[in-house]
Formats: sequence, structure tokens, C-alpha cells
Amino acid sequence: MNLGELADVQSMSDPRNIPIDKVGVRGIEYPVTVLDKRDGTQQTVASINMYVNLPKEFKGTHMSRFIEVLNRFRGQMNIRSFPLILRAIKKELQAEEAHLEVAFPYFMRKTAPVSGAESLMEYRCTIHGVVNHDVRMGVKVAVPVTTLCPCSKEISSTGAHNQRGMVELSVRFDKFLWIEDLIELIESCASCDIYALLKREDEKYVTEKAYANPMFAEDVVRAVAEKLISDENITWFSVDFENIESIHNHNAYAHIERDKEAGPT
Amino acid sequence: MNLGELADVQSMSDPRNIPIDKVGVRGIEYPVTVLDKRDGTQQTVASINMYVNLPKEFKGTHMSRFIEVLNRFRGQMNIRSFPLILRAIKKELQAEEAHLEVAFPYFMRKTAPVSGAESLMEYRCTIHGVVNHDVRMGVKVAVPVTTLCPCSKEISSTGAHNQRGMVELSVRFDKFLWIEDLIELIESCASCDIYALLKREDEKYVTEKAYANPMFAEDVVRAVAEKLISDENITWFSVDFENIESIHNHNAYAHIERDKEAGPT
Amino acid sequence: MNLGELADVQSMSDPRNIPIDKVGVRGIEYPVTVLDKRDGTQQTVASINMYVNLPKEFKGTHMSRFIEVLNRFRGQMNIRSFPLILRAIKKELQAEEAHLEVAFPYFMRKTAPVSGAESLMEYRCTIHGVVNHDVRMGVKVAVPVTTLCPCSKEISSTGAHNQRGMVELSVRFDKFLWIEDLIELIESCASCDIYALLKREDEKYVTEKAYANPMFAEDVVRAVAEKLISDENITWFSVDFENIESIHNHNAYAHIERDKEAGPT
Amino acid sequence: MNLGELADVQSMSDPRNIPIDKVGVRGIEYPVTVLDKRDGTQQTVASINMYVNLPKEFKGTHMSRFIEVLNRFRGQMNIRSFPLILRAIKKELQAEEAHLEVAFPYFMRKTAPVSGAESLMEYRCTIHGVVNHDVRMGVKVAVPVTTLCPCSKEISSTGAHNQRGMVELSVRFDKFLWIEDLIELIESCASCDIYALLKREDEKYVTEKAYANPMFAEDVVRAVAEKLISDENITWFSVDFENIESIHNHNAYAHIERDKEAGPT
Repeated sequence: MNLGELADVQSMSDPRNIPIDKVGVRGIEYPVTVLDKRDGTQQTVASINMYVNLPKEFKGTHMSRFIEVLNRFRGQMNIRSFPLILRAIKKELQAEEAHLEVAFPYFMRKTAPVSGAESLMEYRCTIHGVVNHDVRMGVKVAVPVTTLCPCSKEISSTGAHNQRGMVELSVRFDKFLWIEDLIELIESCASCDIYALLKREDEKYVTEKAYANPMFAEDVVRAVAEKLISDENITWFSVDFENIESIHNHNAYAHIERDKEAGPT
Repeated sequence: MNLGELADVQSMSDPRNIPIDKVGVRGIEYPVTVLDKRDGTQQTVASINMYVNLPKEFKGTHMSRFIEVLNRFRGQMNIRSFPLILRAIKKELQAEEAHLEVAFPYFMRKTAPVSGAESLMEYRCTIHGVVNHDVRMGVKVAVPVTTLCPCSKEISSTGAHNQRGMVELSVRFDKFLWIEDLIELIESCASCDIYALLKREDEKYVTEKAYANPMFAEDVVRAVAEKLISDENITWFSVDFENIESIHNHNAYAHIERDKEAGPT
Repeated sequence: MNLGELADVQSMSDPRNIPIDKVGVRGIEYPVTVLDKRDGTQQTVASINMYVNLPKEFKGTHMSRFIEVLNRFRGQMNIRSFPLILRAIKKELQAEEAHLEVAFPYFMRKTAPVSGAESLMEYRCTIHGVVNHDVRMGVKVAVPVTTLCPCSKEISSTGAHNQRGMVELSVRFDKFLWIEDLIELIESCASCDIYALLKREDEKYVTEKAYANPMFAEDVVRAVAEKLISDENITWFSVDFENIESIHNHNAYAHIERDKEAGPT
Repeated sequence: MNLGELADVQSMSDPRNIPIDKVGVRGIEYPVTVLDKRDGTQQTVASINMYVNLPKEFKGTHMSRFIEVLNRFRGQMNIRSFPLILRAIKKELQAEEAHLEVAFPYFMRKTAPVSGAESLMEYRCTIHGVVNHDVRMGVKVAVPVTTLCPCSKEISSTGAHNQRGMVELSVRFDKFLWIEDLIELIESCASCDIYALLKREDEKYVTEKAYANPMFAEDVVRAVAEKLISDENITWFSVDFENIESIHNHNAYAHIERDKEAGPT
């Protein structure tokens, strides 16, 4: 057919003189291959958001081009290729700024502490970035951990309430970093880390380890923050912890954000 | 305007000769007043589903009539008025069968075990029913509880892993019953029940109570089932328990369903 | 019992010298009474988050005090009382800064455009605020609307794809404002607004109105932004629109944020 | 260590004499390889539930064994291997009955109707099965489609409201079937099917196709039911359709279930 017949409404001008910060597509489910420190690469499934800015002159953006860029980079979606994808979006959409967010379950093999039984742990990760003149990237990872309440342990003659909690850490950095290293850093900052497979001797171990190592939500975010403050590769971080309190029907929460170039917020 | 101008497409006939089991509206958020054992009534907000069957002759149902029935009964949505609402839906939609599902957060005042500090606990409840010749109703309630692992306690020299878990109980019954009674029944079937407000002396109490009363997911559903089997007003029940394991990143689950008129399934 | 027996672990000092930006409780479901422009007040159910900062000296905060403050203000949770609640949290938790977020479904009576049939529309609202020396507040509201695609209309010989979309508007302001006014502002910025109850003559009206008034996601956020830029009471706003594309399995998205004291971001 | 030291609490007897219908693990995120009609296999990520029955004599089941079975079958999780996995669960857990549910996003390449532009569509699939003496399996798939309202088209001088809706089809069958065939069957039962990538000429095509082919929620479930009734390989089906009404803030819903061995329900 003759495309000339089909008016390009998006390219028409807009009289309101208002630029749009972000316009694009959201919630695209897509298979991706990400870097894996142990195995080289790992195949998983991502939920992807892609945006550009829209200058005040234009009525609309061309949404289908986002998908075309995505298809072109299929199979190479990782921290290293991220800047290329961002620049491709910016170029194809003729924008000054482009945003990309890729969220996916990431799997690591983990060995039970006593039995050595191996299993897979799943961690929710997000790689996100923006390009205008330069590319600025960040990584976010969610890591489930065990916390045991110091107050409950202190005041009770037997036991102490404990629960699963979720650490969400976002970082910006200078040099390439491995998601695996962030996950291990976080898992060392709780009463105990969590496993997909524990045999009886492992269950004894993690129970006693948590009891020996009580931590409040406050302790978890401070422990993570302390390690990141001393890590020169990390330029900014935000750590959230939400604790699924076993004695309450609401959650406990703690949050620390630090821009190391700007000092404490 | 002259409604005669607007064709009633829904009332046209359908050639496929296939009856539809359920057709209607879903996810209507609506303020409702429900019965409260202590205070008479309680105002809350419900998410409502309404369906009817559609005979094979008709092309479609008249969706707006569901909303009109709902508006008519606004402020009297409870177990006692439920049969009236069901019959009104059946009548207005000219159906042989009508279904109504009303899910809402329900609040109960609860007193901390030692300090006596009072707070509100929220429980997710659903009242659902169907009418054809007779009305058949059911109630579902979700109750968060604490469980402490008997295995972890037995094998560990100190402490025991524990966590929040959610009991979901659905029942059918002969005579009117109070949601409050179901909730209290469930809360007596865990290592400890859960509170919105606990002072330090209460936290000591619940920690020690849970440690003294270890229960698996299996124990929770059996304890609930045992009480319902002996309750003559309950004709059918289904109890689910999902345990937010503090040492794993997956949940433990147990389920018992029993039709007391038909015997064990 | 003698409280002196129970150590106050939270009040102990922390050696890490790291202040915590936010610590508190999340996901407390609670019945609230909010202001209603038409009826004076309205009872609904909120999901509440409460946080304070924690100075670097202290090991932990006292979570139960949040609930005690909440219980004290039960039944007066609205824009006018918000500053009092914030100051009470700050005082009871002995903090320098306190945060409060209250999210709830809000209901407005709405009249169908032709039949005049009345029904209830539900809108998700959030009131949030922070106090340090001064109180700073914001309101967020989510409003579903209809959009009809200008490109689809232009290039197609018949019809045009249309869909439900969700506008999320956050604002900061000088003087008190009504949620109702924000909702009406947003509903005037789409191809057509949405109703809970439409009779046949209304369905004809909204179908033709949407077809006569095609808008991209970009048009919706620009139309909202244009009105807020000219509203002197609004000091800052962020408008998001997510369009549930009827021809795609992903959503279209547009976003404008404007700090009127700082100029365009 | 000497395992003899660690009591096997789960194997202890239970006095309540109540068998448990299902006990196991829920929400295990796991990478899986499934069959792909076009490419042989496809790698994706599943959310997995595994249960067994528990005889009345035993206090608990051994949860870790579920994960061990899962790890053994890693990489061969598909309709063909499903019976083997079910029998392995039954054997390892020493149960009379075992249940397995595997839900995953499944991707198919799809070609735009005019431009021929290729993109990936995501569909949510679930394979589930139970074994006691025999194995009984089922497949569920969720397929987004476009519907255009026949009433709105009939009564309006211009346009017609349309929207995205979700068909959820569950089937039981005699012989092996391809998920792809179910998806294509469903996509042929709507006003138009949905794409991840449409160029302008495609958008014209799908807009006009939907307008030429108006369907109610009732029409969608009847069209799917009609095809399945005539398919001898299908022994049972349940089809749900939920329509994200573009003119309402609630959804329209229709449902047909048919047990072809038992006749209409």
C-alpha cells in the first residue's frame, strides 16, 4: 500500500508548547540473556519499560520504534550492552534523552551451609539507565533474608520472633559490577541468609545462626550502608528493608539513601 | 430522547445454541455497611462481583442492571440481606441463577495479652452466594497468625524459626454465623495469634507463647479442621494455610476440604 | 509487671554512626474518615505508612508508638488534621522528621450524561506529608479515563481504537484544595470520562464524544499540565498517564513533572 | 555430623486422625525449558507449586524433598515429562497422590497483518497435573484480545467503544496438544487479535477489522466454546473472559465450563 496515504499524526505540531519528560511503552514482557558471573550468561524473562523525552513542538512519539529497537537487541540485554541500547533508542526516536528499565528474576546456585545441598535462589533485579549527552546507569536488586528481633530475644526467656524480610538495594557506580557481588554483600547483612533447599542439619544451623545474630530492620540497612559507604566504586545508593513481622499484620520498614558525591541526604 | 431509536442488541437471539454459566460485572469497588457483632454495624469498602446465567437464546445480558441493583441495596450489604440482593439480581436480569461475591476488609478491636493496649486488626472477608430455586451462601475469611516450626525447635539448641502465615477458611453453614466467631476459632489454632499493637511486655508474652506451642502448616489446618468437624452448624469447609517461611524464599502450604454431607473428599 | 525488668534495646546506642532517613511501619489497613466536598465527610479504609528519621546515636525506634498515635487520631484523618498527626508522630517518636502516607479509595456520586442515572465512582487517593520544622504536604489521585487514538481515527475508514487509561496526578499546593476539584480537572482532559453506570442513551453519548475528541497519551498529560501550570495554588505537580492499549499487550505511558518554583525539570 | 542426633519430627504420628488433602511448597520461581512448536524448545521462568496428600497417621511431610525432585528435573519441564515428575514427587514423598502446577510466560513470534513486521507476544500459561493411580493433566492459557462493543456500534453514529480483554482457557484432553494451537484458536474468537508491534498500515487494518467484527464478552466465550465442543481431543474446558471496559471502571465478565463426558454443567 502507499504509506503516503496514511497521515503521520504523531509528527504534527502541538500548540501547547509543553515538553514531555517521558513518553513510551511499559510492561513489555520479553526473554533476555543477562551476564552470569559463574556461567557467562543466563536466560531469563524481563519486564521492560522504554521512554524518551518529547520536545514541545511534536504532538506524539512513534511507539512502534521502541519495539523495533528491542527486537534488534534481543539476546544481548545486559549491563555491558545497555549504553548501546540506550543510544539506539535515543537515535531511532530522534530524542534528546532516552530511558530504559529492565526488571527480571535472576538465579544463583546456592549451597546449603552444612549438607552442601545445592539449589537455585531467585532474586529480582532491575537494570535501568538514561542517556542524554552521557549514559547514567543504575542497578537494583531485591534479596530476601531472615531477621531475628534483638528486643524479643533480650526480653524473652525462650526463643525470639523472627521472619522473612526483603532488602531492596539500588546503586549507581563508576566501574562495571556484578549483581552477584551485591547479592552476597546484602546476604551478609542479616541475622541469616535464606535458601531454597535446607536439609535438617542445615535447618539447625540457620536457626542457631539467626538466634546468635539478632538484628532490627534498622541494623540491616545500617549494615548494608556501612559496606557501601566504604566501597569506592559506589557513587550513590538507596537501601530499603521491609520486614514481614511474624507478630504483627503490618511490616517494619527502614531506609537509607546516600549520595556520596553530595554527602548525606 | 426516544429510546425506541436505540436497538436493544443484547436482547437479540444467538444462533450458537450455547448457554453461558456466568455473565456479569467484576471488580466494582463500593462502600458497604456490614454486621458487627460488637458494634451492630461497620462501614467498610468492598470489591464486588455480580453474575447471572444467560440462556442459550439470548445474545447478551444487560450489564447496567447489576449496578442499579447494587445502588438500591447500598448500605445494607450483609449476611442477612444477602438473599434479598441475590433474588433482586435474578429478577432484574430475568435469569434462572444469580451469583454475588462481596470481598471487604473487616476490622475487630483486639486487646494486647498483657498490657491490655487496644488496637484494630484487619481481616479480609468474603461473603458469596448463589440463588436458583434456593439460596446457597458461603463465607470466607483470611486470618494472619504466627507459626513456630516444631522441627526447628526440636533440633536446635537455641531458638526456632517462626513466621507470619495466612489461614484462609471458607465455610457453608445452616444457621447465621458471626465472622468474629470464625476469626477467633482460627486464631486459637496457631502457635500464637497476631496483633496490630504490642508493648514490650506483650512482645515477651507472644514470643514465649509461640515457642511453647510449635506448629507445622499441617498442624494449623488440622487444628482448624478438627474444630469445624465437631461444629454441627458447618456443612462444608475448605481451609488453606500459607506460611511465609522465614528460612526459605518460598511458602509452605497445607489444605483440607471436607463436605460433611458427603464425607471426606 | 515491672517494666524495669524489660531492657529497652531500641534505646541503646549504635556504634556505626549512620543516621537512618526513614524507619517505621508499612501497610497498616485502617478505617478512616476523610473530608467530602458534597457530604461533609466520608468513611473509607486506608493503607497507611508512618516513618521517622533516626539519629545516628540510637539503635532503634519504638514501632508501637506509631500505632498509638494512629489510634488517637482515629476518625479524623484528613487534609486539615494531617499537620497535627505529623507533629504528634514527630513528638511521640522524639524525632526531627516524621512522614505519613494515607492511601484510600474515595467515592464520588456521578450522574450519567444523558439519562441522569446516578452511580458511585471510585478513585484511588493518597494524602502524604512530612514535618521537620515546617509541614510539607501533597495529594495524589488516580483517575480512570477513556482515550481514543488520533492516529487510528485518522488512518482508518471506520472506527478508532480506544481504551481505558489511568491518570495519576500528584500535586503540592499553597492553600487547602478539594480532591473533587482535582478529579474533575483530570476528567476534563481525556477523550471522555468514565462512569460506573451508563444506560443505552449514555453509551451512545460517550462513544460519540470519545470519537469526536481523539487524544494520545501525550495529549492527556499535556492537557492536565496546561491547567495546572495556570493554577497559582499548585506549586509542584507530577502527572503520569498509562494507557491500556486495546491493540497491544503492553501499555503506552507519558509523564510530565513541573516544579513551578524551580521552572521546568 | 550424626543425623541420628536430629529427631525426624515430621515422621512422628498425629493423634487427630485427620488426613490432609494437599501439603507442599508454593511460589518457587524456577527457570524451565518448555516445548516450542516452532523452535523445539523455549527457555522461560516458571512459578511452581508442588503438593502431596498426607495420610492421617503422619504429623508432617518432608518439604525439602519437593525441591530435590525439582532440581533433578531441571531443564525438562514440559507436557511430555510432566507424568514422570508427578510420579517422582509421589514416590519421594511416599504419598498416594501428588500435584504439580507450573505457570510461566510463553513467547510466540507473531507477524503484523499488513507490514509483516515480526515481534514477540507473551502469553501466560500453566501446566498442571495430579497423579494417584493414573495421571490427569490440564493446560491453562491466558490470551489478550481486542473486543469492540456491538451495542455501542449499533447505537452510535460514529465509532464504537473497544478495549483489551483477557481470555483464560483451561482444558483437559486425551492426546498431546500444542499450547500454540490453543492460543491461535482463542485469537480467532475476538473482534481482533493483539500484537506487540504494529506499523501504521497494520494499525489501520486492526482498527477496521475490529469495527467490522463487534463482539460482546458473551460472544467471545461462546465462540471459544463452540470450537472446543467440536474438538474431540478436548474432554473438559473452562473459558473465562474479562473485558477491561473502556467506558467503565469495572470489568465485564463471562464464563462457560463444559465437561464433555458429563454433558453441560
